[in-house]
Amino acid sequence: MRAAVLHGVGEIRLEERPRPEPGHREVLVRVDSVGTCGSDVHYYEHGRIGDFVVESPLVLGHEPSGTVVAGGAGATRHRQGQRVSLEPGVPDFTCPQCLAGRYNLCPRMRFFGTPPIDGAFSEYVVVREEFAYAVPDSLSDDAAALIEPLSVGVWACAKARVGPGTRVLVTGAGPVGLLCMQAALAFGAVEVMITDVNPVRLRLARELGASATLDVRDGRLPEAGFDPDVLLECSGRPAAIGEAVRAVARAGRVVLVGMGGEEIPLPLAHVQTRELEVTGTFRYANTWPRAIALAASGRVQLDALVTGHYGLAEVEQALKAGGRDPEVVKAVVRPQE
Amino acid sequence: MRAAVLHGVGEIRLEERPRPEPGHREVLVRVDSVGTCGSDVHYYEHGRIGDFVVESPLVLGHEPSGTVVAGGAGATRHRQGQRVSLEPGVPDFTCPQCLAGRYNLCPRMRFFGTPPIDGAFSEYVVVREEFAYAVPDSLSDDAAALIEPLSVGVWACAKARVGPGTRVLVTGAGPVGLLCMQAALAFGAVEVMITDVNPVRLRLARELGASATLDVRDGRLPEAGFDPDVLLECSGRPAAIGEAVRAVARAGRVVLVGMGGEEIPLPLAHVQTRELEVTGTFRYANTWPRAIALAASGRVQLDALVTGHYGLAEVEQALKAGGRDPEVVKAVVRPQE
Amino acid sequence: MRAAVLHGVGEIRLEERPRPEPGHREVLVRVDSVGTCGSDVHYYEHGRIGDFVVESPLVLGHEPSGTVVAGGAGATRHRQGQRVSLEPGVPDFTCPQCLAGRYNLCPRMRFFGTPPIDGAFSEYVVVREEFAYAVPDSLSDDAAALIEPLSVGVWACAKARVGPGTRVLVTGAGPVGLLCMQAALAFGAVEVMITDVNPVRLRLARELGASATLDVRDGRLPEAGFDPDVLLECSGRPAAIGEAVRAVARAGRVVLVGMGGEEIPLPLAHVQTRELEVTGTFRYANTWPRAIALAASGRVQLDALVTGHYGLAEVEQALKAGGRDPEVVKAVVRPQE
Amino acid sequence: MRAAVLHGVGEIRLEERPRPEPGHREVLVRVDSVGTCGSDVHYYEHGRIGDFVVESPLVLGHEPSGTVVAGGAGATRHRQGQRVSLEPGVPDFTCPQCLAGRYNLCPRMRFFGTPPIDGAFSEYVVVREEFAYAVPDSLSDDAAALIEPLSVGVWACAKARVGPGTRVLVTGAGPVGLLCMQAALAFGAVEVMITDVNPVRLRLARELGASATLDVRDGRLPEAGFDPDVLLECSGRPAAIGEAVRAVARAGRVVLVGMGGEEIPLPLAHVQTRELEVTGTFRYANTWPRAIALAASGRVQLDALVTGHYGLAEVEQALKAGGRDPEVVKAVVRPQE
Repeated sequence: MRAAVLHGVGEIRLEERPRPEPGHREVLVRVDSVGTCGSDVHYYEHGRIGDFVVESPLVLGHEPSGTVVAGGAGATRHRQGQRVSLEPGVPDFTCPQCLAGRYNLCPRMRFFGTPPIDGAFSEYVVVREEFAYAVPDSLSDDAAALIEPLSVGVWACAKARVGPGTRVLVTGAGPVGLLCMQAALAFGAVEVMITDVNPVRLRLARELGASATLDVRDGRLPEAGFDPDVLLECSGRPAAIGEAVRAVARAGRVVLVGMGGEEIPLPLAHVQTRELEVTGTFRYANTWPRAIALAASGRVQLDALVTGHYGLAEVEQALKAGGRDPEVVKAVVRPQE
Repeated sequence: MRAAVLHGVGEIRLEERPRPEPGHREVLVRVDSVGTCGSDVHYYEHGRIGDFVVESPLVLGHEPSGTVVAGGAGATRHRQGQRVSLEPGVPDFTCPQCLAGRYNLCPRMRFFGTPPIDGAFSEYVVVREEFAYAVPDSLSDDAAALIEPLSVGVWACAKARVGPGTRVLVTGAGPVGLLCMQAALAFGAVEVMITDVNPVRLRLARELGASATLDVRDGRLPEAGFDPDVLLECSGRPAAIGEAVRAVARAGRVVLVGMGGEEIPLPLAHVQTRELEVTGTFRYANTWPRAIALAASGRVQLDALVTGHYGLAEVEQALKAGGRDPEVVKAVVRPQE
Repeated sequence: MRAAVLHGVGEIRLEERPRPEPGHREVLVRVDSVGTCGSDVHYYEHGRIGDFVVESPLVLGHEPSGTVVAGGAGATRHRQGQRVSLEPGVPDFTCPQCLAGRYNLCPRMRFFGTPPIDGAFSEYVVVREEFAYAVPDSLSDDAAALIEPLSVGVWACAKARVGPGTRVLVTGAGPVGLLCMQAALAFGAVEVMITDVNPVRLRLARELGASATLDVRDGRLPEAGFDPDVLLECSGRPAAIGEAVRAVARAGRVVLVGMGGEEIPLPLAHVQTRELEVTGTFRYANTWPRAIALAASGRVQLDALVTGHYGLAEVEQALKAGGRDPEVVKAVVRPQE
Repeated sequence: MRAAVLHGVGEIRLEERPRPEPGHREVLVRVDSVGTCGSDVHYYEHGRIGDFVVESPLVLGHEPSGTVVAGGAGATRHRQGQRVSLEPGVPDFTCPQCLAGRYNLCPRMRFFGTPPIDGAFSEYVVVREEFAYAVPDSLSDDAAALIEPLSVGVWACAKARVGPGTRVLVTGAGPVGLLCMQAALAFGAVEVMITDVNPVRLRLARELGASATLDVRDGRLPEAGFDPDVLLECSGRPAAIGEAVRAVARAGRVVLVGMGGEEIPLPLAHVQTRELEVTGTFRYANTWPRAIALAASGRVQLDALVTGHYGLAEVEQALKAGGRDPEVVKAVVRPQE
């Protein structure tokens, strides 16, 4: 099979590799769509994210959908031909974090496209059968792939306890911000403001249901007259986080979704006198069924985020598009084309 | 002013009474719409509900909307002419339940239309200013009145921790069941089944968004193939509760909203082996802002429940309609007409 | 090795069986102490509990401690000679309940001494290595065995959200009631009342820290002047449950620990007007580390519950003692003696 | 009556003032003991804390116990002579924060010794009757006063969800740190490490139950081999907070109790990859009954913290002692002496 392999900073080669064999309770999946993510771009451009360093050839891509082709020993969950969305990280299932239901914090997690585990920019992948989730026909291949970033939004909203009546501020209208925003609406929020510096993305946000948008080049949060209960920080810009945190109402929740380096300044006095809760998210746990239900019911629109398709030979263009072009929201790789 | 006064079982008289004076931090409200409720019907027909006994003439009605006419000393929250929805129970604010945020459990609660506190089937009422909530023009007077039963649904869904992906079973498609159902959808639930024996109400339920309905004269729950995480019991029929509880999935939540007498049989073994949580609701706390936001945004439709209007002189007809006619969902009294 | 095998109602035979071989990531454990439990007695006397029916020869016993003798392939967690307490139910780890941290609700749970899985009334058992927990030398073999029923108490207190200042009523002073009571004290409760009809057990309860005891032959709960926030129901007597539930304060929690048949009457009006939460427990999840810490620190006393030791040849006597003798609290089987 | 009045930075004068009259539902309390707090010292030395500025003569002191002398109109809760501990902040009871049970976040809170509200360094004070809590004879006057800082610890432990088995790190062994530590033990924690640079305080910590202490001049946290689930930050030293946060285990909770200026650096990547929850505390809500129960039962020792008594004429010495002397833990003012 063909796979797009990262060999060093800025160097991806299309290669022939043996098709993987599904192991015990694994399924072999033909990959139909794979979203590209900022972390793929980061590995491509810098060869590392924090402590995760690319030290040998690596296949990126961790937002895959596909079709079940075969099952390994003991795999009984799916029939051949089943369309599936893949949860790209498989934990060890038996450590204390897993047993407590926090498998995303499993120290032995094997996650697609994170060194040294190969990802999904290839024609086939194998995955534990429980982590391949059947999708209804109403979901396109792209939408089935984007269940992964939607899960980030669902997880952030769950952590923030978003519900009816919650006023939500989302900072950053990239794909994750747009999906956090849509997830917040699906959790019942009626007032959801989103900020960015990119008018294309803010217009899309309004089309997807934002009740207000703010171009932070034109106006500042403190003057926006919005008093959010929840901040979903998706910009990853340390300079902006403090101001956003200061906007949050008493007893509010702050979820730091965007990655912004090692350290940020936290407005301690504000956090204390308002008793804000500040937390970060690391991937997600138990989100696929919920995310699929929201997308399948039309409450969240995923296809609207897709701004371009690329073949396996064009993975570098896909990653460059996502990193640079202000008109691009989500570039999708389609390995079979 | 005129008021409809209950003088004994089955006996309501239209009387002239002095217009009440707003006290410290109270407002005087001209009543525009008042929903009728099963508990009004019950007091009218039986003179009591449990330990609450009508021992002297009583004005019923606890689902009022209206317009602020005047404020007492210290009342600064509303201007004259403000349209408001009234939360009909005012607690003592300082007991341990109140201080803990559970003011609905305040033992000194004074609740409209519950002996010995007069309700809102009258031209004017006074209420503590914080319990008169401004409503936007997009909400009709009737909708502003029905914020009260919607609050019952919002409270039930909050207790049941309904969210995206939660499968919800609502038993009973009366006004409260229909509002629990709509609240569940607004909390993010995608699959919501509702049951009843009244095809008119089940048809309305489908129009209002139920994903499935079951006429329990035609089919039984265990055969319905529905595996709910949450049961919102709104029928109040003891015989039906056991079967519904048995349908609930592992780790599910059961909220007993409907009143069904002193005791019901609880399927203990089922509750234990599935670790179900069973709770009841008693009115609501802190729901008005959320309920108004949901109604104003169009996520919940309240006017669709109103099947008839009645003047103050017709309160008995309104109560009889609600109690008997299968075509009636919600009868509304309009004291100014 | 020798094992005590249940061959039918009231018939246990000591037999020679092959010593089990530890499988992948399993350990072989020499059994040192095994507590006897009411459910062992029930299988012995009736051959079934609810839907669980003994259909072929079965080894009972699910409260074992022991010493690691050998490890299977991939088992690295324990060295030979490590003293361990065994969690007796191993789930499938990968179903939705397991992934959500509720592995006790796993439908494919394999639980010691529950048909058709053999238990621990034998010289050796094998168990998944993660479910053998190292214990410090300060814990006796008996105490290490009784971590299992203590886990029931820890789980009940966690479900009931017992903490400092919570007033707790425990109904039933059998081993589970006494451990629920001690767990409640260890969770910070200061006022813990326990009821029974057995003065021996009530005296022991006082010695172990109960702030009040009530012999329900001498006085009734409503007159006891105790206003509990939490009821831990450990009697399993349907007739008594209603009265105990009616004693619970507003916003209280009721945890049904004792098994009392298929159905109990639930005081609906009381549950609703006080917004009680009623739930049942089914075994436990993630309790072993906490229970070991409490026992090792001396905050819970386990050895004080042990009233007799029995060899493998005396399992029937042990079970009969637990079922009948009012002086017996906990009979322990010591397979190596 | 006499009162110690702050007239400017470093200037407290003993003055005669009229004895206050208890208003509606207030009680007049003769003050018996008042703890001194770091915030009293800060007002004395700097004339302000953040936005709270002393602009006119102010009586400090917000940790009072005393005896009820008289009641105002409608005050029925206490008889004359009742010994009480006072909760020193009275909210407006009716704002959204109050109605939600978060009265500590009430924007109209009137708090003893916080400008412009006078505190308790005087012979008498008045307080809302619900905020005077009866104490049993087993509590000394000093202990009844120290229910206030104990409440800080109880609130921090509740926010951090401390329970049996939770490993707790407390940074800073001043009075608040020592009470957070004792509260953690009372919530069921078995392993509680506390750090400081003052060996006197660390020795006291060990006497009061700390399972480990660390003098951070001698060793560093990362080498201490402690893997806490919870950090209760009581040092208020920005430089130390980052290292302590980095020590916290996956899914851990960080409660920022100590005040440390406007901003601190937060280790974002660590908070995200471990999904830590970080929050601050602002006083407390609904803690008095719990704190009194813990102190009265002997689970928390309050008198052991008192290192000196001072009369009303010696308030400045009391404040200077608390600020400077390493042997001083808690200086208590006794206005009647």
